[in-house]
Amino acid sequence: MAQLTLDALNAMRPRDFVAALGDTIEHAPWVAEAAATRRPFADMAALLRAMTEAVTSSSDERKLALIKSHPDLAGKAARAGALTDDSKAEQASAGLDRLSEVEFSRFHLLNNDYRKKFSMPFIVCVRRHSKDSILREFERRLRNDATAEKEAALTEIFRIAALRLDQRVEAPDRLKVHGRLSTHVLDTHSGLPAARVMVELDELSANGERRAVANAATNRDGRTDAPLIGGRPIPIGTYELRFHVGAYFTRLGTPVADPPFLTVVPIRFSVAEPEGHYHVPLLITPWSYSTYRGS
Amino acid sequence: MAQLTLDALNAMRPRDFVAALGDTIEHAPWVAEAAATRRPFADMAALLRAMTEAVTSSSDERKLALIKSHPDLAGKAARAGALTDDSKAEQASAGLDRLSEVEFSRFHLLNNDYRKKFSMPFIVCVRRHSKDSILREFERRLRNDATAEKEAALTEIFRIAALRLDQRVEAPDRLKVHGRLSTHVLDTHSGLPAARVMVELDELSANGERRAVANAATNRDGRTDAPLIGGRPIPIGTYELRFHVGAYFTRLGTPVADPPFLTVVPIRFSVAEPEGHYHVPLLITPWSYSTYRGS
Amino acid sequence: MAQLTLDALNAMRPRDFVAALGDTIEHAPWVAEAAATRRPFADMAALLRAMTEAVTSSSDERKLALIKSHPDLAGKAARAGALTDDSKAEQASAGLDRLSEVEFSRFHLLNNDYRKKFSMPFIVCVRRHSKDSILREFERRLRNDATAEKEAALTEIFRIAALRLDQRVEAPDRLKVHGRLSTHVLDTHSGLPAARVMVELDELSANGERRAVANAATNRDGRTDAPLIGGRPIPIGTYELRFHVGAYFTRLGTPVADPPFLTVVPIRFSVAEPEGHYHVPLLITPWSYSTYRGS
Amino acid sequence: MAQLTLDALNAMRPRDFVAALGDTIEHAPWVAEAAATRRPFADMAALLRAMTEAVTSSSDERKLALIKSHPDLAGKAARAGALTDDSKAEQASAGLDRLSEVEFSRFHLLNNDYRKKFSMPFIVCVRRHSKDSILREFERRLRNDATAEKEAALTEIFRIAALRLDQRVEAPDRLKVHGRLSTHVLDTHSGLPAARVMVELDELSANGERRAVANAATNRDGRTDAPLIGGRPIPIGTYELRFHVGAYFTRLGTPVADPPFLTVVPIRFSVAEPEGHYHVPLLITPWSYSTYRGS
Repeated sequence: MAQLTLDALNAMRPRDFVAALGDTIEHAPWVAEAAATRRPFADMAALLRAMTEAVTSSSDERKLALIKSHPDLAGKAARAGALTDDSKAEQASAGLDRLSEVEFSRFHLLNNDYRKKFSMPFIVCVRRHSKDSILREFERRLRNDATAEKEAALTEIFRIAALRLDQRVEAPDRLKVHGRLSTHVLDTHSGLPAARVMVELDELSANGERRAVANAATNRDGRTDAPLIGGRPIPIGTYELRFHVGAYFTRLGTPVADPPFLTVVPIRFSVAEPEGHYHVPLLITPWSYSTYRGS
Repeated sequence: MAQLTLDALNAMRPRDFVAALGDTIEHAPWVAEAAATRRPFADMAALLRAMTEAVTSSSDERKLALIKSHPDLAGKAARAGALTDDSKAEQASAGLDRLSEVEFSRFHLLNNDYRKKFSMPFIVCVRRHSKDSILREFERRLRNDATAEKEAALTEIFRIAALRLDQRVEAPDRLKVHGRLSTHVLDTHSGLPAARVMVELDELSANGERRAVANAATNRDGRTDAPLIGGRPIPIGTYELRFHVGAYFTRLGTPVADPPFLTVVPIRFSVAEPEGHYHVPLLITPWSYSTYRGS
Repeated sequence: MAQLTLDALNAMRPRDFVAALGDTIEHAPWVAEAAATRRPFADMAALLRAMTEAVTSSSDERKLALIKSHPDLAGKAARAGALTDDSKAEQASAGLDRLSEVEFSRFHLLNNDYRKKFSMPFIVCVRRHSKDSILREFERRLRNDATAEKEAALTEIFRIAALRLDQRVEAPDRLKVHGRLSTHVLDTHSGLPAARVMVELDELSANGERRAVANAATNRDGRTDAPLIGGRPIPIGTYELRFHVGAYFTRLGTPVADPPFLTVVPIRFSVAEPEGHYHVPLLITPWSYSTYRGS
Repeated sequence: MAQLTLDALNAMRPRDFVAALGDTIEHAPWVAEAAATRRPFADMAALLRAMTEAVTSSSDERKLALIKSHPDLAGKAARAGALTDDSKAEQASAGLDRLSEVEFSRFHLLNNDYRKKFSMPFIVCVRRHSKDSILREFERRLRNDATAEKEAALTEIFRIAALRLDQRVEAPDRLKVHGRLSTHVLDTHSGLPAARVMVELDELSANGERRAVANAATNRDGRTDAPLIGGRPIPIGTYELRFHVGAYFTRLGTPVADPPFLTVVPIRFSVAEPEGHYHVPLLITPWSYSTYRGS
C-alpha cells in the first residue's frame, strides 16, 4: 500500500483525511473526522493520541456501538467473505482463515458464550497473537466483568489502530508496535562467530502443528542479515529455532564423532511481549551449547 | 530367562554346556563344543575369548559357512517367522519387524546387492543400532572388499555373541557391552538440583518418526533414579531429551513470563559409541540453559 | 591421635570414659560423667545427644559457669600459652595465632565489648570459620540480647564438642560435621574430561591476604582424586580456585592464540554452609568457560 | 594536540606539510618531504602508504640510518630525558618510564645483546604492548637473522607512524590501528540486562603487579557507555575484569546465601591482537556464570 506522509495528512482537506484514515478504526470514520480537527500532528504518537482520545471522550453509547460494529473472530462474516480488507488480512495472519472444523467449532462456542455474557463481539488485536494465545485470551477474558471487558475491547481497538497507522503513514517517529526476534551463533570451539549456519524458525501450536516462519544463514559476524522477525509484533506464542550446526562443523573440518554428537540444535521458547526484543543466541561447540534470552 | 552362573557352566557335562550355550553363535553349536574343552573359565572375558578363538582358528570354509548360516536382516525368513528366537528379538529391537513397505523394499534391495557382491548375508549386531544406522552401515559396508567384509561379519558375530552371553550368564565380571545414558538437571536460578522435573527420551528417525524410549522424573539430587538407558548398548542413532522445566518453575513459584520463556527444553543429540557413557545434563534458569556431553 | 571405638567407650569403666572424653567440653568433665551413665550408645549421634542433654538439663548457674570457663578468642590466654591443646589447635586453624597487631587489637576490643555486655567470653566453633567470618559473627552477635547470646554460646559449644568427638571416636555412623569442596573440569572443546589440569585453592581475606589451602591435578575423569576440602567443615569464607588451563590446552596441541586467551581461570566464591557440599566445576574451551554451584 | 585535517594537509605548502608531519617517523623528515610530492591524498590510507613507500623505495643505507636513529627502549636516552616527545609518551604508555632497577637492568642487557648482534637499536611499536610482551618480543626477535630483523624493525616503524598519524590527522577514514575491549552483563536469573554493575579492568604483569586500566558501571542495556578500551590498540598482555555482582543482586533483593556464593567475579584473559575486538561478556546468576570471547 502506498504510504502517506504525516506532512501530507496534515495538509489535506478534512474529507481527504477521512478518506485516507477513516477505516483505521473499524466502521468508525467519525473517529478520523474528530481527529482531523486537531491537526497538525507533530508526530505519529500525536496522531494516534488524537484518535484514541476521540473515542475515549465519546459517550458510552457511541463506544459500545463502536465495539459492536466489529466482526466476530473466525466467525460467520469471515466464512461469508463479509470482512473489511484489514480484518481479513489480520485474521489470516494468525491462521484464523485456515481453521479445522474442530477449531472453528471451538471459536463458535466461545463467540457465543462471549456474546451471551457481554452482548458484544470479542475483540483482540490478532497481529499480536497466535491461534493458541487468542484462545487463551478468549478464555481468560470470558472471566472478566462487563466493565473490565469494555476497557479491554477499547485497548485492543487502539492496538489495531496503531498497527494500521504504522502500516499506512510515514513519519519521522515510529509507534512502539514492533517486536524483534534475532539470533547470533558464536563458535566457542574456535573463538569466532559462526558463519553460514542455516537457521530455521517455526511457530509451534499446542496441537503439534508447526509452521515455518523464517529461515536464514548467519553472516560473517554470526548474525542473520535481518532479524528473523522484525517490523511487526511477534505473535504471542511458542517458537522453535533450529540451528544446523553439524553441517557447519563438517564444513570447517572440525573433528566430530560419527554421527556428530550435535547435528541440529532446536531451541524452543515462548514470546510473551509482542513488542519486545527477543535475542536468542547460541554458543556452540561440537559437544556443548548454551542459549539465553539476551538483549 | 533364568541366568546361568559361570561356576555352573564350568561344572557341567560338555553336552549340557553345549545345550546351554550352543546358540550363542547362530546355528553353530560346534563353537560351544570347542569352548567347552577350554574350561574352567575364570571370568566372562575368558569364556567369550574361548568362543571367538574357536571361530578365528577354524578353517576359512567353516568361517564362511558360519557367516552364511545367518538370516537376512528384515528378510523373507523374518517375514515367514523362520528366525531363531534370539534373531527375532534382536531384529525387533531396532524395529526391523515393523518396517513400512518402502523400508522393506529398501532392505530387500540392499540384501540383494550385498549377496550379489559377497555371496553371503549382511550381518550386523542389531542391538547396537537404530534402523537408520543399520542402513548407513549397510551402504558403507557394501563399498568394502570381500576380505574386509568377512572380517566385519565376524566382528559383528562376536558382538552378537557377547551380548547373548551377557544376558544368559552371571559372573563376577561384566563384558564391556553396556552403554549408559544419564542426565542431571541443575537449577542455577536457585543454586540447587532440580527435583521432580519430568524427562522424556525419544529416538528420532531420519524420516521424522519418533519413538518413546524412556521417561522419568528427577530425584532430589536432580538425577533420575536409574540411567535412561543402561544395562545394554545404546543404539547408534539420534535422540531427543525433553525436560519439562516450565512445570518445575511454576511449582516452585519462580517468577516467569506468561507464557514462560521456557516450557519444554528439547536436547537433540546422536550416539556414536553404543558402549559409551553419555551424560547429558541440563543447567537451567527460566531464561537460559546449557547442556554438554559430560562424563 | 589414636581413635577410640564406640564399642570400647561403651565397655569402659566410668572413670576411663571420663578420662577419654572429659575434655570434649572445655573444662567440664562433669558432662562426660553424666553421659557415662547413659551408656551403651548405639551410635555417635546418641553419644553426642547424651552430652548435649547433660548440659541442657543442667541448672542455669552450671550452664553459665560452663560458658565462662571458655577462653577468649585470640585473647591473653592464647598469647600466654595458657590454652588447652584443643583450643590451641582450633584457634590456630583460623589463623588466630598469627594475628597482626591491628587484628589483635580488634579482637581485644571486641572481647572487651562482649564481656562488658554479656559478662562472659565470646564462644564460637572456630573450625567452621575463617578469621573474617569470626569477626562478622562477633559483630553480629554483639547486637543480640543476653538470652539469645546464652543460647548461641551453647550451640557453639555443642558444635565444638561434635567436632572433637568426630576426631576421637570411631563409630559406624558419622556426625554431620563434614563439608566437602570438589571440582570437575570438562573440556567441551574435545568433549572429554580434562585430565592433568593443575588446580589450586586459596582462602582469601578481606584485607587482601591469600593463603594456600590445597592443590591437585585432575585425573582421567576430570576430577581430583580426593575432594579439595573434605573430612572437616569448610570454614565460612571466601575462596579462589585457579585452573591452569593454558598448560592443559598447550599439552594437547589445541590451537590457541599467542598468548592464549585463557591461561589461568580464577573462580572466586564464598562458602556459607560449612557442612555443605560445594561442587564447583569448570566447563572450558580455549575461548569460553562456565562454572556453577553443582551438587 | 589540535588535529589537522587531511584537506588542510593537501593544501599546504610543502614546508608546512613537513613541519606538520616531519616527526611521524622518528628523526626522518625526508620521509614527509617525499610524501608531500604525492599529494593530494584521498584518504588516510593513501597518506600512510605514501610515507611507507618513501621508506621502502629508499636505499638500504638510508633504511639502516633510519632504523639507527631510533632510541633504545628504556635506555639511557630515556633516563637522560633525551627522547622526542612522541617517544617519551609512547615509552610511558607501557610503563617503561617506571621500571624497577631489576627491570631496567634486564632491558639494558637485552639492548646490549641486540645491538651486539644487529648493530642497531631494538624497535617495537610500544603502544601495542605491555611491558611483559615487549620483553617476550625482545627475546623472540633476538633469535631472528639480520634480514628478518631489518624487516621487523621497518614494520614496527610503520606501526608507530600509523598511530602518530591517527592521533594528528582528521580524515573521513580511519587507519585500522584501534582495538576495542567491551563487555556486557546479562542477568539470566531475571532474564534482563544487569544494570549498574561495577566493572573494573586491571592489567596484570607476570611479576604479580596489577595496574588499574578502567572502571565503569553497566547501563540499562547491561553494557558500559563506552568500551573499556577503545580508540587505541589494546596492548598485548593479560587483563582481569572484575564484576561486582554481589552488590548488584543485593540491590535487586535477589535471594542469595550469606555470604553470597558470588560477590566479585574475576575474569582473566590475554589479548593477542591489539587491533582486534575483544567482547568479554558475563552471563550471571547468583550461583553460576559463563563468559566467552564474543564478537
